[in-house]
Amino acid sequence: MNRYSIGLDYGTNSCRSLLVNLDTGEELGSVVFPYPSGENGMILDPSDPNLARQNPQDYLDGLERIITGVITRARERHPEFDPAEVIGIGVDTTGSTPLPVGSDGIPLALKSEFAGNPNAMVWLWRDHTAHEEARAITEAAMRMRPQYLERCGGTYSSEWWWSKIWHCLKVDPEVFQAASSWVEHCDWIPAVLTGTTRPDQVRRSVCAAGHKAMYAKEWGGLPDEEFLKALDPALAELRSRLYGEAVPSDQKAGGLTEAWASRLGLRPGISVAVGAFDAHMGAVGGGVGPGTLVKILGTSTCDISVLPGDQPLPDVPGVCGVVDGSVLPGYYGIEAGQSAVGDLFLWLVHHLVPESYGSSDEDKFSEMERRLALMKPGESGLLALDWNNGNRSILVDVRLTGLILGQTLHTETHEIYRALIEASAFGALTIIRRMEDSGVVIDRIISTGGLATKNTTLMQIYADIIERPLLVAASEQTCALGAALFGAASGGGISLSEGQKNCCRVREVEYHPIPENAAIYQRLYRLYLTLHDAFGRADWQGNLSHVMKDLIELRNRQRKR
Amino acid sequence: MNRYSIGLDYGTNSCRSLLVNLDTGEELGSVVFPYPSGENGMILDPSDPNLARQNPQDYLDGLERIITGVITRARERHPEFDPAEVIGIGVDTTGSTPLPVGSDGIPLALKSEFAGNPNAMVWLWRDHTAHEEARAITEAAMRMRPQYLERCGGTYSSEWWWSKIWHCLKVDPEVFQAASSWVEHCDWIPAVLTGTTRPDQVRRSVCAAGHKAMYAKEWGGLPDEEFLKALDPALAELRSRLYGEAVPSDQKAGGLTEAWASRLGLRPGISVAVGAFDAHMGAVGGGVGPGTLVKILGTSTCDISVLPGDQPLPDVPGVCGVVDGSVLPGYYGIEAGQSAVGDLFLWLVHHLVPESYGSSDEDKFSEMERRLALMKPGESGLLALDWNNGNRSILVDVRLTGLILGQTLHTETHEIYRALIEASAFGALTIIRRMEDSGVVIDRIISTGGLATKNTTLMQIYADIIERPLLVAASEQTCALGAALFGAASGGGISLSEGQKNCCRVREVEYHPIPENAAIYQRLYRLYLTLHDAFGRADWQGNLSHVMKDLIELRNRQRKR
Repeated sequence: MNRYSIGLDYGTNSCRSLLVNLDTGEELGSVVFPYPSGENGMILDPSDPNLARQNPQDYLDGLERIITGVITRARERHPEFDPAEVIGIGVDTTGSTPLPVGSDGIPLALKSEFAGNPNAMVWLWRDHTAHEEARAITEAAMRMRPQYLERCGGTYSSEWWWSKIWHCLKVDPEVFQAASSWVEHCDWIPAVLTGTTRPDQVRRSVCAAGHKAMYAKEWGGLPDEEFLKALDPALAELRSRLYGEAVPSDQKAGGLTEAWASRLGLRPGISVAVGAFDAHMGAVGGGVGPGTLVKILGTSTCDISVLPGDQPLPDVPGVCGVVDGSVLPGYYGIEAGQSAVGDLFLWLVHHLVPESYGSSDEDKFSEMERRLALMKPGESGLLALDWNNGNRSILVDVRLTGLILGQTLHTETHEIYRALIEASAFGALTIIRRMEDSGVVIDRIISTGGLATKNTTLMQIYADIIERPLLVAASEQTCALGAALFGAASGGGISLSEGQKNCCRVREVEYHPIPENAAIYQRLYRLYLTLHDAFGRADWQGNLSHVMKDLIELRNRQRKR
Repeated sequence: MNRYSIGLDYGTNSCRSLLVNLDTGEELGSVVFPYPSGENGMILDPSDPNLARQNPQDYLDGLERIITGVITRARERHPEFDPAEVIGIGVDTTGSTPLPVGSDGIPLALKSEFAGNPNAMVWLWRDHTAHEEARAITEAAMRMRPQYLERCGGTYSSEWWWSKIWHCLKVDPEVFQAASSWVEHCDWIPAVLTGTTRPDQVRRSVCAAGHKAMYAKEWGGLPDEEFLKALDPALAELRSRLYGEAVPSDQKAGGLTEAWASRLGLRPGISVAVGAFDAHMGAVGGGVGPGTLVKILGTSTCDISVLPGDQPLPDVPGVCGVVDGSVLPGYYGIEAGQSAVGDLFLWLVHHLVPESYGSSDEDKFSEMERRLALMKPGESGLLALDWNNGNRSILVDVRLTGLILGQTLHTETHEIYRALIEASAFGALTIIRRMEDSGVVIDRIISTGGLATKNTTLMQIYADIIERPLLVAASEQTCALGAALFGAASGGGISLSEGQKNCCRVREVEYHPIPENAAIYQRLYRLYLTLHDAFGRADWQGNLSHVMKDLIELRNRQRKR
């Protein structure tokens, strides 16, 4: 008898499924469903670039589509495939992406009285409307509960749970009052599949609760009432309607309901795992373990590793999350990230690339990559900061923006693209250095995500800048794969480590640093750090008049070589 | 009997003529000849963005074309027009734009042994290959002859005469040795028309000689041999083959030769004025006088005013030229400028504007202008530095480059265009403030050049940022008009001031600052100055972490309004 599992991966613009053979690692199929609402699945506000919401109905429409779809695919591939051999379902989503629900567990957005109100919808991870609240939470925690901040890199983010809920209280008290509770997207999907959407029944993910809701066992779960009261009494009052316990994703959220089982063609009662954030499950699907950093290179990026849980908790300033069991049970999960990488390149191609590079986005990217691959490091004279969507690690500041410098009257578009790729790699290096400086051992880096599998030029630049070999995960769906592994493990059918051993592989292609490029990038990185600190740190003092001149000198040298 | 004059204006990409009635100011015609060589008339080197040369044959081909052309136009307009009533010809060109010539006066570039060698061609104003030499000249002058630097803003530029000639000596000694002398483009054209191209016959313009060749009567003309010897003995040796005297453009270079007169259909012997740089003649054509600043808004810009010659010479740090008689005889000419304004916008439209704005450059500009005109100051959150071609005033440093910051994932192309317009206006304001701080009185600002007459959105932004009314010169060819006035004055047929009174007018359209915009721009200007000093001045010390945050705050406030 075969053992299969289904992973569901809810991304920013679409959701997708993956069906995997747990013994051979064979991936039998994958189906994508783009969210139909808004712009690429996001409800935006032209007058406020910080706002990003989603329609929970999109999630429901996608749920049935991607599961039935992937079963059909698997049957097409192996006519002997039997859906009864699927032993679990796992779910990952973006986060922190909370939604307000009624006491009946129904999202407010799906109730007629709140139809069309963005505040009643899902508050997508990339919504930054709550930056004032984030600052106030950070300040209150500094004053009252410094231990809360130690786990989240020293600064609470506008992307996270409490900032968003508090902002809703301020801008739309009616929605806040109508919300019996709030649920993370990653907890809501398992609850839907297992018929446990009533707020008191929802099993909560420790991965989502961890630093993003400031949850920790040591201080009794969520932040205490006194602290919340200092923010706003209404938040303290809400606390009891949230949750007291959060558990890792090797735990069962429940069994698949009869109704869903018959709609999907699966066995009723099979285990649906407690959900988690995409990056965490992607790290597991990518092969994370002690000494291994998994870099998920997507619209944004996540850098995830783990430390054995029997060691003292490390303090990693500016790294967003250090949470017990958030990635692998028994380990501390270490999570950092960059808030725009693929998104940064998409911004460029959507707004600043003329048709001389091609007519579609794809053609433009490919022609730019062809041309920038011919360039030497430093040859453009450009230097950029990768902050168009703020800086998540290690500055933890959404009120930062992009910067490009070094332009002449001859600067071409693909040179700017290369500078943005380099900036994102410098950001990645900054995170790795910070982790290592704080005692996290990194022997091996495995990349995953669309950019890692498709953009060989980018990967070589990353290897040259990070100055280590970069491996690439074999699966193209490491998030969904990780979810599938948790789905199976939560039912007890197979352990997580056995699942990882059977299913997580790396590709033959590896990227190794080219020494002469690495030497130039060391010089550019010093300049990047100067800009990073000058614009990002209030305690920096200095002078920048050498920056443009150093870039020109490097440019002239590289052009002559 | 009518009195007419012809002005010839040799620009960066083309030359043009203007035929004007000196009593009525009526412009009877204008003809343009784009230089056929290279890229838009410039010989460039893809491996060195600093290099920009021109082919002197282009100048000769254009010369006959634009004069015969404009006479034909004038006849079409007024059949009774009689070319015998043309009393003078004046010439302006870009500068410092020197060319090496043989002892026969023939440019080396036109001799077969140097055909195709860029170092034997004309060294265009925007050629920046000689930045090392410029720095060495500045250092030597600081040490030995500080008085030389007082006239050119404290720093000698790579765009100027000695830097270029010295650089030629270093990179191509063969060309240097073959050059019997060097001649400014603006001196060469009058020499061609008057048959005085032999180096000892060429009359030299004080406008070109002034600060760009470090010429001044007080120290005996060109820099002394001891100083030049300290740079390189070969330069000291060259000095005697250059010139001892330079004169203003109300002087005659000579009379039109019989040969040219018959080819052109003009009277032989009519006065051809000593040449001058385009901006200086443009200022005269625009109506410059004491208290009046003329802003020439073209690919680059020039800001020109004059001070009565009977006052002590002012010291205007960072302002390129303060030269006796360089603009109007009897006055000190005060000249500053920005090295890329129109060029900056052209760079944007050529490299960073997708076809969604239109298919031609013109359509793209017009759609961007339509959209940016709807925006409020500060609304984009962007801030730029206008240094893609270095900074001519007041930092006098070609080793500076462009900078754009404040980008989010929503930043659009026309917002960047607006930020570049604003940056160029902030640069313009910085120059005006420096002049006023140094005692130059500015009661009235007259703009001229393509941007001033065509881009109403830009002009309003400039008025809001500079916070004064901006007038626009009536003529579309103020440089050629100024040249025509000098042509006439040099023959004694009409005084310069009478010519200006008859021919220099302003348009009805004026631009007045809008107070609420000006208030926002005051805040943005402070941030611009912070970046300007942080990246441009070695003596700046500080922190920039407020810059992005201040821009975000302003953006959010302006979007809500």
